[in-house]
Amino acid sequence: MTGPNSLTTTVRWNDQGLVAAIAQDWETGEVLMLAWMNAEALALTAQEGRAVYWSRSRGQLWRKGESSGNVQRVRELRLDCDADAVLLKVEQLGGIACHTGRRSCFYQRWQDDAWVVTDTVIKTPEELYGKPE
Amino acid sequence: MTGPNSLTTTVRWNDQGLVAAIAQDWETGEVLMLAWMNAEALALTAQEGRAVYWSRSRGQLWRKGESSGNVQRVRELRLDCDADAVLLKVEQLGGIACHTGRRSCFYQRWQDDAWVVTDTVIKTPEELYGKPE
Repeated sequence: MTGPNSLTTTVRWNDQGLVAAIAQDWETGEVLMLAWMNAEALALTAQEGRAVYWSRSRGQLWRKGESSGNVQRVRELRLDCDADAVLLKVEQLGGIACHTGRRSCFYQRWQDDAWVVTDTVIKTPEELYGKPE
Repeated sequence: MTGPNSLTTTVRWNDQGLVAAIAQDWETGEVLMLAWMNAEALALTAQEGRAVYWSRSRGQLWRKGESSGNVQRVRELRLDCDADAVLLKVEQLGGIACHTGRRSCFYQRWQDDAWVVTDTVIKTPEELYGKPE
């Protein structure tokens, strides 16, 4: 089946009606974050050309960057072999994907038997959101 | 807390005791697949330096490449900000991560209102596993 509906009908949604979504910098290839989408979020992402996720903690749609301005412009949208994960190649406005103010959420590296923070904070959460974390 | 235990105790396991694991080619940056790990799989991955996942469909540990030979040597292991996703930078032996015989599992691209297969099969599943899919 082709047509607009196949965007969401092809996806194998999990028990909560969600699919895992990986955001990757379209230029550098850096993996920025892993979040979740419901069908509405995926449809809005394709329609608006910007990443829209489903916030599991807040239980609502989450237009990435709506508070911080760090919008993710979607350059490419991919689906995996068993249709339970999507990959977004994005242009990360502001150069910050993580709510901690770092470029990527994957800023802890396993080395010498410990998780070590390897990436620096570019903007503090206060600078990003106008209030302390 | 440091020490070997922090590898798994730091992770925020989901209701099924699993964490999402993204495998990325350590050289090209290509995202190869998304799979899942339980605590034992993560510990074995760190210990053996190769990706070990938890197969949700088979309900057992899955040493990536045990059938196909396409082992993933782990060059770097990362954890995200809320500790519910790990990122593996891997050397993909054989150049094939997907069970369909493609380099990456994310071989379908959303374009012109349809999911379109963009990547070619390098080896058929029969060549990979010695039997048809």
